[in-house]
Amino acid sequence: MKMSVTMVKKRLLNGEPCKKCAQAEEVLRRRGLWERIDRVVIADEADAESEGMRMARELKMETAPFFVVSDSSGPPKVFESVLTLIKDGLSPAAAEGKPASGQNGAAWSPEQTERLRGQLAGRDAAEILATVLQTFGERCAIAFSGAEDVVLIDLAVKSGQPFSVFCLDTGRLHPETYRFLEKVRKHYGVVIETAFPNFVEVEDLVRRKGAFSFYDDGHKECCQVRKVEPLKRQLARFDAWVTGQRADQSPATRSGVAEIQSDTNFTGRAGGPLLKCNPLARWSLADVWSHIREHDVPYNELHDRGFVSIGCEPCTRPPRPGEHERAGRWWWEEATKRECGLHVSAKPTQVFAGLENDERARSR
Amino acid sequence: MKMSVTMVKKRLLNGEPCKKCAQAEEVLRRRGLWERIDRVVIADEADAESEGMRMARELKMETAPFFVVSDSSGPPKVFESVLTLIKDGLSPAAAEGKPASGQNGAAWSPEQTERLRGQLAGRDAAEILATVLQTFGERCAIAFSGAEDVVLIDLAVKSGQPFSVFCLDTGRLHPETYRFLEKVRKHYGVVIETAFPNFVEVEDLVRRKGAFSFYDDGHKECCQVRKVEPLKRQLARFDAWVTGQRADQSPATRSGVAEIQSDTNFTGRAGGPLLKCNPLARWSLADVWSHIREHDVPYNELHDRGFVSIGCEPCTRPPRPGEHERAGRWWWEEATKRECGLHVSAKPTQVFAGLENDERARSR
Amino acid sequence: MKMSVTMVKKRLLNGEPCKKCAQAEEVLRRRGLWERIDRVVIADEADAESEGMRMARELKMETAPFFVVSDSSGPPKVFESVLTLIKDGLSPAAAEGKPASGQNGAAWSPEQTERLRGQLAGRDAAEILATVLQTFGERCAIAFSGAEDVVLIDLAVKSGQPFSVFCLDTGRLHPETYRFLEKVRKHYGVVIETAFPNFVEVEDLVRRKGAFSFYDDGHKECCQVRKVEPLKRQLARFDAWVTGQRADQSPATRSGVAEIQSDTNFTGRAGGPLLKCNPLARWSLADVWSHIREHDVPYNELHDRGFVSIGCEPCTRPPRPGEHERAGRWWWEEATKRECGLHVSAKPTQVFAGLENDERARSR
Amino acid sequence: MKMSVTMVKKRLLNGEPCKKCAQAEEVLRRRGLWERIDRVVIADEADAESEGMRMARELKMETAPFFVVSDSSGPPKVFESVLTLIKDGLSPAAAEGKPASGQNGAAWSPEQTERLRGQLAGRDAAEILATVLQTFGERCAIAFSGAEDVVLIDLAVKSGQPFSVFCLDTGRLHPETYRFLEKVRKHYGVVIETAFPNFVEVEDLVRRKGAFSFYDDGHKECCQVRKVEPLKRQLARFDAWVTGQRADQSPATRSGVAEIQSDTNFTGRAGGPLLKCNPLARWSLADVWSHIREHDVPYNELHDRGFVSIGCEPCTRPPRPGEHERAGRWWWEEATKRECGLHVSAKPTQVFAGLENDERARSR
Repeated sequence: MKMSVTMVKKRLLNGEPCKKCAQAEEVLRRRGLWERIDRVVIADEADAESEGMRMARELKMETAPFFVVSDSSGPPKVFESVLTLIKDGLSPAAAEGKPASGQNGAAWSPEQTERLRGQLAGRDAAEILATVLQTFGERCAIAFSGAEDVVLIDLAVKSGQPFSVFCLDTGRLHPETYRFLEKVRKHYGVVIETAFPNFVEVEDLVRRKGAFSFYDDGHKECCQVRKVEPLKRQLARFDAWVTGQRADQSPATRSGVAEIQSDTNFTGRAGGPLLKCNPLARWSLADVWSHIREHDVPYNELHDRGFVSIGCEPCTRPPRPGEHERAGRWWWEEATKRECGLHVSAKPTQVFAGLENDERARSR
Repeated sequence: MKMSVTMVKKRLLNGEPCKKCAQAEEVLRRRGLWERIDRVVIADEADAESEGMRMARELKMETAPFFVVSDSSGPPKVFESVLTLIKDGLSPAAAEGKPASGQNGAAWSPEQTERLRGQLAGRDAAEILATVLQTFGERCAIAFSGAEDVVLIDLAVKSGQPFSVFCLDTGRLHPETYRFLEKVRKHYGVVIETAFPNFVEVEDLVRRKGAFSFYDDGHKECCQVRKVEPLKRQLARFDAWVTGQRADQSPATRSGVAEIQSDTNFTGRAGGPLLKCNPLARWSLADVWSHIREHDVPYNELHDRGFVSIGCEPCTRPPRPGEHERAGRWWWEEATKRECGLHVSAKPTQVFAGLENDERARSR
Repeated sequence: MKMSVTMVKKRLLNGEPCKKCAQAEEVLRRRGLWERIDRVVIADEADAESEGMRMARELKMETAPFFVVSDSSGPPKVFESVLTLIKDGLSPAAAEGKPASGQNGAAWSPEQTERLRGQLAGRDAAEILATVLQTFGERCAIAFSGAEDVVLIDLAVKSGQPFSVFCLDTGRLHPETYRFLEKVRKHYGVVIETAFPNFVEVEDLVRRKGAFSFYDDGHKECCQVRKVEPLKRQLARFDAWVTGQRADQSPATRSGVAEIQSDTNFTGRAGGPLLKCNPLARWSLADVWSHIREHDVPYNELHDRGFVSIGCEPCTRPPRPGEHERAGRWWWEEATKRECGLHVSAKPTQVFAGLENDERARSR
Repeated sequence: MKMSVTMVKKRLLNGEPCKKCAQAEEVLRRRGLWERIDRVVIADEADAESEGMRMARELKMETAPFFVVSDSSGPPKVFESVLTLIKDGLSPAAAEGKPASGQNGAAWSPEQTERLRGQLAGRDAAEILATVLQTFGERCAIAFSGAEDVVLIDLAVKSGQPFSVFCLDTGRLHPETYRFLEKVRKHYGVVIETAFPNFVEVEDLVRRKGAFSFYDDGHKECCQVRKVEPLKRQLARFDAWVTGQRADQSPATRSGVAEIQSDTNFTGRAGGPLLKCNPLARWSLADVWSHIREHDVPYNELHDRGFVSIGCEPCTRPPRPGEHERAGRWWWEEATKRECGLHVSAKPTQVFAGLENDERARSR
């Protein structure tokens, strides 16, 4: 028996459709998954014997919408949340009863990265990303910063491929950024995992130096605790990751950004190699914003208040008139020290030098 | 008898110097006028018989600092405010007992404008402005918008020449802009005159269309009432005016900005010709901001919140990432309609077409 | 022939109703005037021969909705704006072809005020206001500050009586207050006249003292120019005015607030007597906010940001925790000097003392 | 040999004193510890042989100020930070070479709590707090929320007793609150420990429900993860804790707040009993703010923007005009559900009911 998906929508007492049901439908359409719904059944609050109301009673569901997925493999599964339905009920992996990754869990090799790089040379961002996602599925994660790299999620959703998303929640993001993450989650119906710092490290740093030590002795130590360590923990679950880095962001440190590369700073699943994909490497800032406007992509409200590049709240400000977009990040440090250990391409030593400095500071 | 200027400063009961006196001294130094103070006398609150305290009693002054200017022409003049002292006590005109303008009130001719233009070809902004101020003195007014054109005031003050400043206060500026105007006034010790709209026109427009008609039918009608008419009224007092227009602000409408030109849109004193000087015509936005940073020029706090070009509050927003600096002005109208009738260079008809449209609307 | 009113609504090419037409209908319903529309005609963009499209061609109307009012007295009148329709087409006065005031222009006497006061003793705010409006019609003006006195407009609209509204636009209100005035105007479909300061006075004050003189020598001089003079000008057009003053606002200066009183500070039309009505005199702040919440009255967004009493932007801040609601006004002055000359009840000398001081200052 | 403390201050090349040294001195004075400095030595940048410069070379110190503490017990100790000096060099415990607690680590009993409660009946907040701190020293922690309970830190510092401070950093505080914590840390020279949520719990909650689940199904689950669990972890290190709870904050849930009580919701060190001290129990909001203003206590800048009670950013707003101070917390939930599991006095079941609900939700 083939898989069959039923959506139960509510009709209110006054005859109006249920707003939350309409939003769920909208998310499914936006994800290109509406045609996967085989049947829509109405739970009419005015008619206790309507089919939807009877199903709710049988399945003990108390809210609408809900979704019932049946196939030959066992009892039907019920989903209350459209996000969970998408992830656990409708993903290709779920459909075939196997893990999401196209790799079946086998290790990925640097040679394969080189082959992929050759194969994708000259392709556009959408093609590059689609191919990477087709290759890795949910074993590939978009590292979403909560800023204009939302374009990556837009492209990924439109590729129709499975994928993962995580965000480094340092505990110091702007309130507006948290709201934006939620907006993206609901708009695209994607699960956005969060990578949160280890309390042992945060509590130790704050006890010793307070919560603004970066203004005194640089952002390295704090980034290490709040970004680098959680990032390492996340990447250890994946074979590939995707970032929004662009060559035009920083002539000094990002000019060598490639669209496909072996990550030399971090390791992936089981300590194995990690592919890094930067689909927007050759895009300009203007390209990114054209895409956002033309495709009506939701964006962080801080961009309406003059912010361009967005990181942690105490470490970000709008660039002053005439300044480069990255000038608003760690603006109190010198221009050349502007990277935070996450994306340093050719010089892995720089990261570990940073770590050593921090360790030295710590053991003093 | 030569002119002699005495400044009376207060010493507080606790021996500390008076803060307001120190600020007044700082303004005089900034204006290059400190050497014009011939004598400083202390009014010691702890000693009623100190010289300054005695002078205060005699002159019935209740606050410090105050300034006494004596010359052979009559009784000494007393100034409570350092701004008034600068304008009415220390200006070259005051010193010589004649009007400030180097023109002695004679009319200015378009031919003289052409000669000046030739003479100043290739000079830098500071030289151009200094020469114009030397020619016109207080009969030349800087039209200060409360934004980055503060550079004009900085250059004018440093030229050592007399000049006037006015600002178009539409009644709808940002609170931050009003605060900035005050900051500039106190920092440089300059009188900033204000050009305020006629209540008859404002009340009529608001009665008919409310206070946001520009969002519905364009900003022309409102700009006419709140900017163009008050500007005309101001310009009728001057022979020359100075603006911060730059060619890089708008390829379409401002590319023809010249440093020295005859104003073809407005007339000057007694309906006579008006010289228009745009010293920054060839500067880029980055040049302006380099000057502000290098010379520690005070700036509108809105620039720290992503604003670049600044006009009226309802009609200004920060440009979005990647947009041109003027994109944040009247952003709801098309890009080509972005001028407001004040600076339209070659096409005077455009202003009057606007007026005609407005009149038509009004008489309907 | 009886009066007949036709509304022409647009139907868009895609069959959808025109949004602006729907809003106009909503305003008419909110004003209780929807039943005055005798006929609704559709202008169907998809059908040039639909009745509404034909009417638009004949009447040369270019936008929808529009309204046609016919009666026996002459050619039909066409209104583009629902606000103008309400004021000039549907008001009782318009209906009867006579001036709006129930007084037919005859002077009002202090004795009549006393009679009205006796008659209304013990009545609630809605009854008091309704009776005053019934007596004076458009010759009575609500002085709307843009804050919680929006309750007055809500009560006035619900009374079904004609009335006028004006707001003192000092040129220094919060941007949020201007937006709120517009919101009220559109929500209730009322014309809100504005009383704007005289440029002669504003320009003089700013030239002499800058735009923040109140922080140095008190708010009296600025209030005189920006509030008192424009208020006098407005009141000279009316026989009665309505304010939102409450006894609980200021124990010291407002405890004697009466619901009906003869205004001893200002004069009305042709220098005649002026009735002052304070319908909320005995309401508490909590009463006002209960009304706003229960009747879903629009309110100034500043109230969501901690503001309680709202005046000019530089002179208003949210009260600190535990402070009285008026503590956020002219907070830098002593508590007892907190009134600005507009509502001083028993001591007219205070106003004129203020004026004298100002004059003295000016002539020094 | 008695303990001796030397402070090394820098004099700049231009003869000016070092600003950071002056601030350190100010903190010591504010803490009443300035008389503990036995000797001040100048490191004169202009004179490499000045005593301070020689000491810096010997001790390999690169920044000023620094502090040298000598006694008979071993080599001198050097402190770079005034905060560390206060905590580890000057505390009574450090002075006597024994643990800070007056209890010598022995367990505290509920009977002792009752005795203390009797002994302190009728005393004022400062006395109550001083006695509790005298009893427990650093084994007593002030739970500082970053709001008006800063009064507790002010009282504690003025008591001259040792104490601990921690703050629950949920990762969702306002940026202004983080800045305020830092301000308090530097102003009073106190270490403010942070209690940060466990990433395992945060990541799990956000994966399942996003970062705003509280708006949908109540704040209990999020508070449990971000506040209650970290609080438990902190309290397990102490014998007593101090909160800013006041009876006037919530008639329903906080009226029974006592100044001294046995904590029935949480346990202390080694699972032992925990004394809870609420010195402000009988203070009103106005009392708190009088103290802040009269003693010039630093406060959270959000209080200037209308905030009264302050918690997490998404769960706090200024109260609307006329509302109770707690109305701005979890405002979307009913008034009776306004406590978050931290301070529930008589009904421990409520906390665990909450936990059970959450567990149920989690295992579904």
